Amino acid sequence: MTEEILRVQTNTAGSGSAAPIAVEVTRGGMVESFHRVIAAVADASGSLRHAWGDAGRLVYGRSAIKPLQAIPFVESGAADAYGLADRHISLSCASHSGETMHTETVDAWLSQLGLGNDDLECGNQMPSHEPTAHAMIRKGENACRIHNNCSGKHCGFLSTAKHLGEPTRGYTSADHPVQQRLIRICEELGGEDLSATPRGIDGCGIPVFGMSLKAMAVAMARMADPAELSAKRREAILRIRKAVAAEPLMIAGTGRFGSLVLQQLGERILLKTGAEGVYTAALPELGLGIALKVDDGNGRASTVALGWILTQLGVLKQADRDALANQLTVPITNWEGVGCGVIRPAPDLSL
Amino acid sequence: MTEEILRVQTNTAGSGSAAPIAVEVTRGGMVESFHRVIAAVADASGSLRHAWGDAGRLVYGRSAIKPLQAIPFVESGAADAYGLADRHISLSCASHSGETMHTETVDAWLSQLGLGNDDLECGNQMPSHEPTAHAMIRKGENACRIHNNCSGKHCGFLSTAKHLGEPTRGYTSADHPVQQRLIRICEELGGEDLSATPRGIDGCGIPVFGMSLKAMAVAMARMADPAELSAKRREAILRIRKAVAAEPLMIAGTGRFGSLVLQQLGERILLKTGAEGVYTAALPELGLGIALKVDDGNGRASTVALGWILTQLGVLKQADRDALANQLTVPITNWEGVGCGVIRPAPDLSL
Repeated sequence: MTEEILRVQTNTAGSGSAAPIAVEVTRGGMVESFHRVIAAVADASGSLRHAWGDAGRLVYGRSAIKPLQAIPFVESGAADAYGLADRHISLSCASHSGETMHTETVDAWLSQLGLGNDDLECGNQMPSHEPTAHAMIRKGENACRIHNNCSGKHCGFLSTAKHLGEPTRGYTSADHPVQQRLIRICEELGGEDLSATPRGIDGCGIPVFGMSLKAMAVAMARMADPAELSAKRREAILRIRKAVAAEPLMIAGTGRFGSLVLQQLGERILLKTGAEGVYTAALPELGLGIALKVDDGNGRASTVALGWILTQLGVLKQADRDALANQLTVPITNWEGVGCGVIRPAPDLSL
Repeated sequence: MTEEILRVQTNTAGSGSAAPIAVEVTRGGMVESFHRVIAAVADASGSLRHAWGDAGRLVYGRSAIKPLQAIPFVESGAADAYGLADRHISLSCASHSGETMHTETVDAWLSQLGLGNDDLECGNQMPSHEPTAHAMIRKGENACRIHNNCSGKHCGFLSTAKHLGEPTRGYTSADHPVQQRLIRICEELGGEDLSATPRGIDGCGIPVFGMSLKAMAVAMARMADPAELSAKRREAILRIRKAVAAEPLMIAGTGRFGSLVLQQLGERILLKTGAEGVYTAALPELGLGIALKVDDGNGRASTVALGWILTQLGVLKQADRDALANQLTVPITNWEGVGCGVIRPAPDLSL
């Protein structure tokens, strides 16, 4: 317990910040549990517009920065070179549920690259989509790398490496050009030097790197408003946004928050979940980017907090809020289906 | 959002309390997420010996108070009347994994009562034990109430009701004598009036009631040291402690924290997990009771926090800490099995 490791100073709010967002979990007449969420809203000029908690805190973006990390794949010309469609680009940003629509696309995509399941370096994972997982178990099928929620992103990596004449083997190593481009794109769009921030390994084997919540929000703001970027990068970003909006089920899956919001808002939003309670969003109409992190890492609070911010910013109109009601305030039921409580933004929690 | 509901004042430490216990989740060179845990250690006289955070906070005990709620089942003579063994008594305190050893015992127990699956009111739930769940899926079997993690507790309720000549139907209703006894036992052992505390519904359909963390710790201390209780109650408590220690797999399941600790410590401890990050323990050698609650409800922090308290109290000797090393500091691996980080007590987190 004596090694050097970066620890959080939770009592540092950051100048100009509001208190962290609170999400409460009720049961009957009491708040049973609660979550603290830090969040940043920024614009493409690099300015912080709103902050809850310390927007300077370094967090790992995890899968929430996949849309940023899809930029080199499109910008390099790899997506075009392999004649890839919206569904592939959406999948390259995805943490998918492993449904047949996802795995069939990944499978065909790998074939198109002259590669296969074994060329993926993301590890085996059962689909999170329960009916699909159960069907596999019934048939005695094992989880493959193709089923891994990150397999689409990894196909994007492999496509880029192959297109640029780089080795495909070892593409998850920190020193592989694919991974170096991922950090560089986050530095370029976020505007912060990431060369010396903490490093770790993600669930799917790629390096993760600490990035301030503010920088993540700025990077997403530049995906929302890429006017000041190079024409090539702007084009790549617009294509990613369009592809994800056109294929909302590819970036997540049936019944999932991200897909439901995209189905409701279309090109008005690009949003992405990440492990340990991270969420990002780009709002083209407002030219804003959002990044948030639940202190305790629980995803049940990240979606509720994002829904609350989207409501505060006026992105969700009444019709949107009605359509997404069960996502904004999430019902908790017991094994008999009886309502026991809700997960919702806390109106007044002393943090 | 305007109804009356009890909310937490997290900035109230309570007099004489230390700061909440922090559990950190590391990844590479950074703490990625962290949890706050409030905890109370009390003795059988009703005194608080240690507190981290506000020990006066009301929490729902959830399944962590099952050992307390098993007392009427044994004390009433129901366990004896039906010739039930240690494994049944351990199961009456259990949140079991739905393994065959659990469900076969429940099934036979219900038959012995002249009842069946449909008399349980806990709802259907798939076993949490993955190999068992997968075997059921392969055979096309559906989850039954017997598989519900609370089915053993419900068998205890049904046995008590039947033995005392009460209706078995509706035994989960707040006004049924079974449920009224459950509150009364918590009042009697915890020493606090629970008549007006918040109410809710548990995952298995029974009422839950707010109880201060301190009262929960005091109640567990009286299970650890029942000397001042009536002979009948003392005998019931000793029998429950002995039964759980003799059947450590019945109260939880293969590979689970509670069972592993019991296998290591035997009659030196009685401990029980509950939903939303609650944990309780009784320590007969020290005459102490422990109750803790993770603010955000995540069970990954409750076990680590309990392990830390047990270490602080000297309950875990070096050999115990070695045997339970992966429970005290929990490794996090990715889909390829590579170590990415750990869940552990935080040495110095500013809360």
